[in-house]
Amino acid sequence: MTEANQDNVQDLIEHIVTVLNESGIEKIRDDLQMLHPADIARLLESIPPENRELIWPHIDNLRRGETLVELSEGVREGLMADMNTHSLAAAVHNLDTDEIADLIPELPDEVIAEVLYVADREKREQLKAVLSHAEDTAGGLMDIDAVAIRPRVTVAVTRRYLRMLNELPEYTDKLFVIDRNNKLVGALLLSDLVTADDAQRIDEIANKNIRTFSVQQPQQEVAQAFARYNLVSAPVVDDDNQLLGRITVDDIVDVIQEEADRRVMAPAGLDEEEDIFAPVIHTSRSRAVWLGINLITAFIAATVIGRFQETISGLVALAVLMPVVASMGGNAGIQSLTVVIRGLSNGTITDKNARKVFIKELLVGSVNGIIWAVVVTLVTLLWFGNPALAMIIGVAMIITMASSALFGALLPSMLSRMGIDPTLAGGVALTTVADVVGFVSFLGLAAIFLV
Amino acid sequence: MTEANQDNVQDLIEHIVTVLNESGIEKIRDDLQMLHPADIARLLESIPPENRELIWPHIDNLRRGETLVELSEGVREGLMADMNTHSLAAAVHNLDTDEIADLIPELPDEVIAEVLYVADREKREQLKAVLSHAEDTAGGLMDIDAVAIRPRVTVAVTRRYLRMLNELPEYTDKLFVIDRNNKLVGALLLSDLVTADDAQRIDEIANKNIRTFSVQQPQQEVAQAFARYNLVSAPVVDDDNQLLGRITVDDIVDVIQEEADRRVMAPAGLDEEEDIFAPVIHTSRSRAVWLGINLITAFIAATVIGRFQETISGLVALAVLMPVVASMGGNAGIQSLTVVIRGLSNGTITDKNARKVFIKELLVGSVNGIIWAVVVTLVTLLWFGNPALAMIIGVAMIITMASSALFGALLPSMLSRMGIDPTLAGGVALTTVADVVGFVSFLGLAAIFLV
Repeated sequence: MTEANQDNVQDLIEHIVTVLNESGIEKIRDDLQMLHPADIARLLESIPPENRELIWPHIDNLRRGETLVELSEGVREGLMADMNTHSLAAAVHNLDTDEIADLIPELPDEVIAEVLYVADREKREQLKAVLSHAEDTAGGLMDIDAVAIRPRVTVAVTRRYLRMLNELPEYTDKLFVIDRNNKLVGALLLSDLVTADDAQRIDEIANKNIRTFSVQQPQQEVAQAFARYNLVSAPVVDDDNQLLGRITVDDIVDVIQEEADRRVMAPAGLDEEEDIFAPVIHTSRSRAVWLGINLITAFIAATVIGRFQETISGLVALAVLMPVVASMGGNAGIQSLTVVIRGLSNGTITDKNARKVFIKELLVGSVNGIIWAVVVTLVTLLWFGNPALAMIIGVAMIITMASSALFGALLPSMLSRMGIDPTLAGGVALTTVADVVGFVSFLGLAAIFLV
Repeated sequence: MTEANQDNVQDLIEHIVTVLNESGIEKIRDDLQMLHPADIARLLESIPPENRELIWPHIDNLRRGETLVELSEGVREGLMADMNTHSLAAAVHNLDTDEIADLIPELPDEVIAEVLYVADREKREQLKAVLSHAEDTAGGLMDIDAVAIRPRVTVAVTRRYLRMLNELPEYTDKLFVIDRNNKLVGALLLSDLVTADDAQRIDEIANKNIRTFSVQQPQQEVAQAFARYNLVSAPVVDDDNQLLGRITVDDIVDVIQEEADRRVMAPAGLDEEEDIFAPVIHTSRSRAVWLGINLITAFIAATVIGRFQETISGLVALAVLMPVVASMGGNAGIQSLTVVIRGLSNGTITDKNARKVFIKELLVGSVNGIIWAVVVTLVTLLWFGNPALAMIIGVAMIITMASSALFGALLPSMLSRMGIDPTLAGGVALTTVADVVGFVSFLGLAAIFLV
């Protein structure tokens, strides 16, 4: 009775890919009908563009719309570019208002016009309302399909009203209780409604103490609150506490996953929405900028070394060991950077305790600097038999690791104040500083005391 | 009417910290009563251990249990170490069975004994059932409080049954329909129940086509399915399709957030559960291992350079430029590594298309290798006026960037096959290879053609 579970879906997708390659599209038409739009999206993302074009015509309009929503931007762009205005409008117009709103920035004007033309007046109004909020705010996340009831009616009346509605919107776990002025006064969980007596009044059983979000709240804040307070849905209100819509946990799960992807991809200069089968030239270009920035920082470090060419030609062992100092500084700094970016984003590091955290990171960097300086000093002594060199690399290690750790801790707030995203630029900036400090301290000390 | 929203909670927490520091614990007792356990956890995580001990006694047992569940492991450990057996048992025993099960590995035996002693027989049985599944499987995630109904009864009878229950478990969005043998035959959304007519039979309105999970399924797979199919709750069944329990989206949000944290923290050798106010020595030790591993890899690279000391003393410019080659190789490799780890984990890269992806990454690495090789060649020519050196660094860049990109793409499956987590070890392994290839190709070519 149950639908294919996860493993079976993966098997089915791989089966479809195999059959498609071996026997052509005709053999898999029936299999395609069994897939959920999210699985069609996964299938399309894992095959090259030429195969996507074979499959797409066999997906009906209703599932095409849902599939477009599920696809990553890179793959979606490619598919939409090949669709004409009518078929694109036909795929999109059945979607929920908030889903249409998300797609609108990518849709050609003619398609938007056609979708609006087909929509009824209510949907047009709703779309206008959703579009008036920035995509990454509570307003941009919300659905406008909240079911509202009045506080003074009985459970029996409410049930009659719900039966009249015939069907409730997806993810309805609660009804919103609003007064005559459309102001939110509480919420009633369906699970409380079904266990209540017919004669009870809504305001007796509704929860008056509920979490609300204002339309302008950033979506990251909303997502953190959903995670923290285990919410399934929550109302969005305007400044007068009037009910505007509701946010549901399925959208929040998407926000959290996208943010998680971004946090992993952005530090490597990658776009998390890119199609893995995008043409080589396209992908190369999108990655080149970040490599170029790294090249500049590498040349900054090289310039520093260039200042010490005489020192190095006096003792080539310096060239052998200098990457060790820079690399350990970079690693210690990245640890502090990562801890602080995370603490700031989950709210455990605040203005009140930031100084304590900075001092601690400096101390941790110093302790590890000392520990590994001892090791490196001994290894250098054994390798090159040069006590002065061994001492100098030890001191340089401590300086570099301690200062990189402190810099890693300070960097996120410095970058944020400059309007730069620390997730994106933190690693590059930190590595540059660690390289410069590492090379200057090691080669500088050597120039003074050794060569 | 509504509870404090996100901003206000942060303000309240900062207010509490300020007042605690200035006027002592007595002044904030009332404020503490307003905080949700998740907020108490956030408050405790953002203040040093000595202040935690001031606040903890003023939290009642019921919220203490919930707070312990919400805390990161490092902070929880500290608080539990200071509690005696009775107060710890009192805090824990009111929790849900699955929450107790999550804490059990950290609880002293006496506390477990006391919790079991206080629990009724049913709860003991449930606890035994939950504990029999690994923590990171569907079985470990599930609650055993699923509400089940029979297919042949009417909506009216079901409602009477629910009224008798008086209260439904949290996050009940659906009831599970089971036959006489406890086999799952469907599910009924509460939102469908409240819109149904009293005379309808459950099997007429229940959804027979639902997603189920088996107890042994890994939690990451469950989380991906929840995200993909927008589930709020889903049943867990055994091999005979008998209903064992249910998984709810609030736990899934936690799984996704923990995995997101791990993906950012693990590559820097950090434990995502560590207390930011842990003693310096404790934190230093936990980070030292990873720095040690990096030191070994740095010395591997140094050994490679050591082989070319004669070459370098012949032309010191080599020492100046060699970090540029290694760093660009590392960056190109990290891009491929990140893309492939992510593609494997979200299922877009499979056995069927892996070869295509590897070839593409090699090509992208080569294209960017060529582009930046041209730039580096020109810069080197201008800087050192040595055409042979400029040619050699260009060729070395192409070799290093192309091979690092290919290696970055191959590495995740190689590591997985060895039972090593690519998220943890991928970056370190990649950097080592890029350094070695970079130094060998650049210095090696120079040794042959230049010096």
